[in-house]
Order: sequence, then structure tokens, then C-alpha cells
Amino acid sequence: MKKMMNNELMELLESKCFPQLKKRLDGMNPVDAAAFLDQLPEEKRPLVFRLLDKDLATDVFAQLAPEAGRTLVDSFSDGEAAQMVEELAVDDAVDLLGELPANVVKRILQGTSPQTRELVNRYLCYPDGTAGSIMTAEFTELSARMTVAQAIAHIRSTGQDKETIYTCYVTGPCRVLEGVVSVRELLLARDEQLVEALMDRQVIRAVTTDGQEEVAQLLSRYDLLSLPVVDRENRLVGIVTVDDAVEVLEQEATEDFEKMAAMAPSDDRPYLRTGVVTLARRRIVWLLVLMISGMVTGSILAKYEAAFAAMPLLVTFIPMLTDTGGNAGSQSSTLVIRGMTLGEIRPRDLLAVLWKETRVSLLVGVVLAAVNYLRLVITYPGQEMMALTVSLSLVVTVLMAKTIGGVLPIVARSLRIDPAIMAAPLITTIVDAVSLVVYFSIAHHLLGV
Amino acid sequence: MKKMMNNELMELLESKCFPQLKKRLDGMNPVDAAAFLDQLPEEKRPLVFRLLDKDLATDVFAQLAPEAGRTLVDSFSDGEAAQMVEELAVDDAVDLLGELPANVVKRILQGTSPQTRELVNRYLCYPDGTAGSIMTAEFTELSARMTVAQAIAHIRSTGQDKETIYTCYVTGPCRVLEGVVSVRELLLARDEQLVEALMDRQVIRAVTTDGQEEVAQLLSRYDLLSLPVVDRENRLVGIVTVDDAVEVLEQEATEDFEKMAAMAPSDDRPYLRTGVVTLARRRIVWLLVLMISGMVTGSILAKYEAAFAAMPLLVTFIPMLTDTGGNAGSQSSTLVIRGMTLGEIRPRDLLAVLWKETRVSLLVGVVLAAVNYLRLVITYPGQEMMALTVSLSLVVTVLMAKTIGGVLPIVARSLRIDPAIMAAPLITTIVDAVSLVVYFSIAHHLLGV
Repeated sequence: MKKMMNNELMELLESKCFPQLKKRLDGMNPVDAAAFLDQLPEEKRPLVFRLLDKDLATDVFAQLAPEAGRTLVDSFSDGEAAQMVEELAVDDAVDLLGELPANVVKRILQGTSPQTRELVNRYLCYPDGTAGSIMTAEFTELSARMTVAQAIAHIRSTGQDKETIYTCYVTGPCRVLEGVVSVRELLLARDEQLVEALMDRQVIRAVTTDGQEEVAQLLSRYDLLSLPVVDRENRLVGIVTVDDAVEVLEQEATEDFEKMAAMAPSDDRPYLRTGVVTLARRRIVWLLVLMISGMVTGSILAKYEAAFAAMPLLVTFIPMLTDTGGNAGSQSSTLVIRGMTLGEIRPRDLLAVLWKETRVSLLVGVVLAAVNYLRLVITYPGQEMMALTVSLSLVVTVLMAKTIGGVLPIVARSLRIDPAIMAAPLITTIVDAVSLVVYFSIAHHLLGV
Repeated sequence: MKKMMNNELMELLESKCFPQLKKRLDGMNPVDAAAFLDQLPEEKRPLVFRLLDKDLATDVFAQLAPEAGRTLVDSFSDGEAAQMVEELAVDDAVDLLGELPANVVKRILQGTSPQTRELVNRYLCYPDGTAGSIMTAEFTELSARMTVAQAIAHIRSTGQDKETIYTCYVTGPCRVLEGVVSVRELLLARDEQLVEALMDRQVIRAVTTDGQEEVAQLLSRYDLLSLPVVDRENRLVGIVTVDDAVEVLEQEATEDFEKMAAMAPSDDRPYLRTGVVTLARRRIVWLLVLMISGMVTGSILAKYEAAFAAMPLLVTFIPMLTDTGGNAGSQSSTLVIRGMTLGEIRPRDLLAVLWKETRVSLLVGVVLAAVNYLRLVITYPGQEMMALTVSLSLVVTVLMAKTIGGVLPIVARSLRIDPAIMAAPLITTIVDAVSLVVYFSIAHHLLGV
């Protein structure tokens, strides 16, 4: 359906029916209008963008893909760009300016009001990925001595520009955060009540330097629509709204998926719009590291050349052993990494995880080994010792894979390394080497090779 | 800090200082109070729960872990349980009742009002994972002919029980959904304006049978605070609020992580609270399937026994080859699976993905092969043909791994199979078998073994 709509719009554009196109666009949700602009060829975007109603244009601009936004700004005069920065919410303006070269940013900011310029410059200083970098300055501020009627009047007269009016923050001298009150509570209270009687003084808050993932988790944990961000002196400097938190959570999950599959995390650009060289660069570093580790495993294997020259059948069980070990290990590491991301597992749970993984792995390992033993004595009758060797190796491999997989992410976190790098690929490589040593040691003892 | 607070509360409980304990609990955020109850031993929960203020008690109950909620209800009389069902938002009540045996549910519902009973029964019929199963009936309804002043008065008089008052839905006869208007728009408008002049008629909506993930994506895409859910006749039956959407997104990401690491998805219970047998059961099925596939790979290898008996050195490159293939393949499958989850890649993009992966894999494969070739000619001087064999196999393996990894998840989606099962473990197993065939075929031609 979306697709069909976009096709109609394309036809209007190609047949230059601009009045009809404008009418259609003005009736659209800004998100859908932005999606239409995103997929247009670069040279058509300025034309279509200029058709939009002024108010809609700002909303659409805020929703564009970073790339589309940047190319569009290139077509603006400095004055038009300054105007756009003035009208965007400060977090969107900062996102846009962050994409542009420094000299262009300087030129554009010269055309904005001193307040905007100062605000934007302050925001540009917060490092990427912190609460400061995703917050916005458009919030509603009340004072404790206002009555409900005054507060509602204040909101009605100033609310037009605010990112969210539904959660109001009560501040004292120097903007120190004193409390929070929702529009709902104000609406349900009597007109003459004081804000300070309604407000909650225990405000859940973040500091500008907190990580964006923590901020998103707080919003999600306490079901908030927005979270106040304060500086070190507890002065209110911005808010993070729930829609930004949703975006952060999705982006962090994507990054974790990527890191856990041995890739450098992406810049949030969809796969189909990312260039071949960029994709290759993000993948190659880890592949190289893991390939070299694979060579180490190979050199371990080289030590046992005599064993498999004497008994080539042993080699045929290697893929099954190492694959099972790798899979068992990555199950455990995935559960533990995800548990840490969600705050369910902390470094002090190390022993609890170790104990749990030990028991799980024994249970799993014994079942797998039994199935394997049965299959081998049926396929290779009379070779019970070999079947025993493979099955025993399987139990030990699963045990070691699961304890290593469960423990290494926690150790990484304790050493302040991102646990996601301890995911499937690295665990598999480590477990490969370990399982081969186990396998050939057991073979040496039981089979005498 | 949280931990310290809970320790203080525990001390108050153990020294039976109930008045102080009650005072502390009543001042807490319901989320934190629920977390304290969750971690109490089962037999202490009813005692502490009864200390809470009645209003707080309902909020705390809604936030309890499913297990804690169930054990608490066991300590209630049927009348008390009915009262709780009456006071909870309908989605929380349904969550609770879904955990209890059918005869208990029936007994409890007998004590509730006919309206609640009918509502709950209707909600219990929506299958798990649909919009119907996560929606709530507590929304604000307006009619198009109301003035702004009437609408605000209506909200102020009825808003107490609503899950969110900030987005109001305008309905006509038979509750047919006609439009949507935010409290913000009402507050910023003049008192005498009509709701129908302010409302947006293009309402983004879900149908009760839509998947919960689609619903969460809609809320996130359009930055909504709530999404209306309608039945097949376009009658408004409930809303899904953004906090539920955040929960769904986190839960779906966790499930994807689990499925992609070859585990059956969990029931949303934290790792440390899940029993050993449950954990083992969720992991063993896939491990068995993959172990048996590993045996197939082994039997492919068995065909080349003569080759590696003649040249045992060949065996030592197997781990490096299969690991690199597995990693290269799981990078591609992870990107494509995540891209499909986020709606960025669709089945009709199959050829685009195939073409992109082909180019990326040639780039990556050639670099890896070059590094590998250099290393081999240095380590094994005079064995250039062997070095060529390994390097050539590497290029072909990476090429096949990445195209298989990129294409299989899309094929799975087209066949209506969950693409997440085409993640690292299965891709690795498939690529293992393919890369061994490639390796030994190339060795046969180049080295004559």
C-alpha cells in the first residue's frame, strides 16, 4: 500500500503536476513524506521539499535519513539553513550539523540567533552516545509556587515549541531540578492547588555524561515519557523523550547483533544503502583476527599428525566435535551477554553463572554423548573404544565450551571490555583449540595413538 | 545504591518494624517496590504486600515478576483476587489470569463486575503475541462534536483510570474510530473550537490480530505515545501504549538473540531465575540437530581419507578454512536477518542482496587469501602449490559462505519460516560441508592427491 502511494506521487512528480503533488504531500504524515523524499534521486529532493508547507517541512526534515538531510542542506542558501536550524528541535539540529564539515557549520550558525548558537555549540560538545548527545532543550518548566491554574495557563501559552508538554519539570533558582509533575496530575487537580503539593520530589534523572543505553533502560524500566538530564550541579539542562529511547534501544540491539557476529558496528545506515567497500571494511578486521587464530588451532592439530596418519578415521569426527563445542559455547555466551545488556546479570554473579553452566553442560553433554555413542557402535561395530573416545571428548568439550562461554563475557565486562566481542566467533575459535587438545589427549590414552 | 536500600528494608522487615517499613515503601516508586517484593522469599511477600497503601498496591502488583504475582495471588481470598482484577488495567489483569489454572480464573471472575468479566474474557481470547493480547481498554474517548472546553472537562472528570490520557480517540456510532487528537492540541486550542476541527482523520492503527512486533514497530516509526487497536469492523477496542511497545521490542530482540544462537526462545524469565533443566531443554534440541549435521560433514570428510592420509598437512588447514567460512557466512546472515526484522530488507530484495554479497565477499576473500598465501609461502617454503590450494579454497569458501548466508534467511522468510533459524549455527554447519568439498576438490586438481 505504501509502495503504491509512493508510485502515485512519483507519477505526479514526473508529469510535473506540482499543485496536486503539494496537496497530497501536505496531507501526509511527516514520517511517510520523509520516506518518500529519502527514496527520491538526490537532484529531485530540493524541488519536492520546497513544495511542502513550512511547518510540515521542519517535521519532515527531522525525519529524513542523515544522508538525505545532508544533500538537501547542500541545496540551501546559508540563510535557509540557519532558518532550518532555528526551527528544528535542538537535538535534531545538532544531528544535522554533526554531519556537515566544520566550516559549513560555522557559516550556518552565524545566521542563527545568539541563543540558538550558544545552545547548539553546547550540545555539539557532548560526546556521541551520552545522555547529553541525545537530549533536547525543548521542555516545560514550572515553578513550585505556581497554582494549577497558573501552571496550565503557562503550558497553554508556551507549549507550542516543546518536544513534550506531558511531563513538566519544577525548577528552583539556577534551574536546579526540584520535582516533576505530569499534565495529567495537573488536569485532575483543583485549580487553586499549588504545584509543590502535587509534584513528586523523587525525580528519576540522568546526568549528561551517562551512557545513552542506561538512559533508555531507565525510561523503559520506569515507563516514563521523558527523563530529565541534569549537569553535575543538578541543574536541568535537557530531557530525553521516549521516542528517542526506543530508537536507542533498537540501535544498540543492532550494534550488539553486529558485534556478536564479528563485525564493526554500523553507522545506523540500512544494509541496502551501504556501499560494498564500507561493508567489506566492517567485516574484514575480525575475519583476519579469527583466521589467524584458526591458524593457531591448525598448528595445534599439526602436533597430532602422527595420530591421524595412523588412524585417519579420527579426523572425520573433528567437524562434529568442534561445531558442537562452538554451538554449545555460543549459546551460553549469548545468554550471558544479553543478560548483562538487560541488567539481569552483573559481574558479581560470576560464580552463580559458572555453577549453573556446569550443571546445564553436564546434562546436555551426557545426552549428546549417549546419542553419539549409540550411533557410532551401530555404524562401526567392534570399535567401542573409539566410540568411547569420541563420546567422552564430547562431554568434556561441551562442559568446557559452556563454562568458557558463560564466564568470558563476565570477565570482559569486569576488565571494562565490551562483552559482545566474547560472542559466538571468538568463543568458537577458543573452544575449537581446546576441544582438539582434549580429543587427541583422550585418543592418546584410550586408543594409544 | 538500590542494593543498599533493599538491605535497609530487609532489616526493617526482620526486626518487625512494620510502621517504618510501611512508611519507606509508601514513598517508593512502584517499580522499585515491586523489585523488592520480587526478591523476597515467597512466604514473606503477602505480609509486605498488605502493608502497602491500596493505590500503590495495585501499581506495585502490575510491576511484579509473573512468578511473584502468581504466588501472591495464591495467598489472596477469591474476593481479594477479584478486587485486584477489578483495579488492574485490563492488560495487566489478563497477564495475571493467564498464569493461573482455569478453575481458579473462573472462581476469581465470579467476584468481579459483569463488565470486567466480559472484558477480561474477551481479552483472554486474543492469541499470545497479537495486538489484542497486549492492548488495554483504558483509553480516552471523545466525540467529534464536542468543543475543546467540553473535551477538557470530560478528560478531567474521567481521566483518573485511563492508562494514558494524552492521546484521545474520537469515535462515532458503534465506537467506529474517526480521528485522533492529542491533549496538547486541545490545550493549545481555543475553548470554543470543535474537536472535529482539530482531529487528524488519518489515524495510524492496528487490527487486533496484527503481530505485537508490527505494532511496536508502528509506534516506534511514527513516534507515537499510543496506538489504537480496532476490530475488523474498524471499531475501537483498545490501545497499546509506548511502554508496552518498548517491552515488546526488548523481548523480541532477546528472542532473536536466543534463536540466532540455536536456542528455543525463553518465556521472558531472567537467566539466573531459570532452572537448570529448563535451560538444558531449551538448548539440547538444536545441539542434537547440529551434531547430526556435523556427522554428515564428517562423512563427507571420510571420502577424502586417502587424500589426507597421503598429505596429513592438509588436515591442519581445515579449522582455519571452516571457521573463516562460518564467520563470513554468519556476518552476512546476521545483517540480513536484522535488516528484515527492522523492515529494511524485504523478500523482493533477494537479487540486490545476492549481488551485494557477491561483491563484498570477493573483496574480503581476496584480501584474506593474500594474507594467507604470504604466511604459507613464508612458513612452508617451496610448497607454493599447497599455498595456492589453501588460498584459492579460502576465496571460494568466503564467496559461497556469504552468498548462502545472505540468501537463505530471505528464502526462509519467503517460505514463511522464521529467518532467525538461518543464523550462525545452521549457516556454519552448511558452510562447513561446502568448504570441505571445495577444499579437497581443489587439492585433487592442483596437488593430485
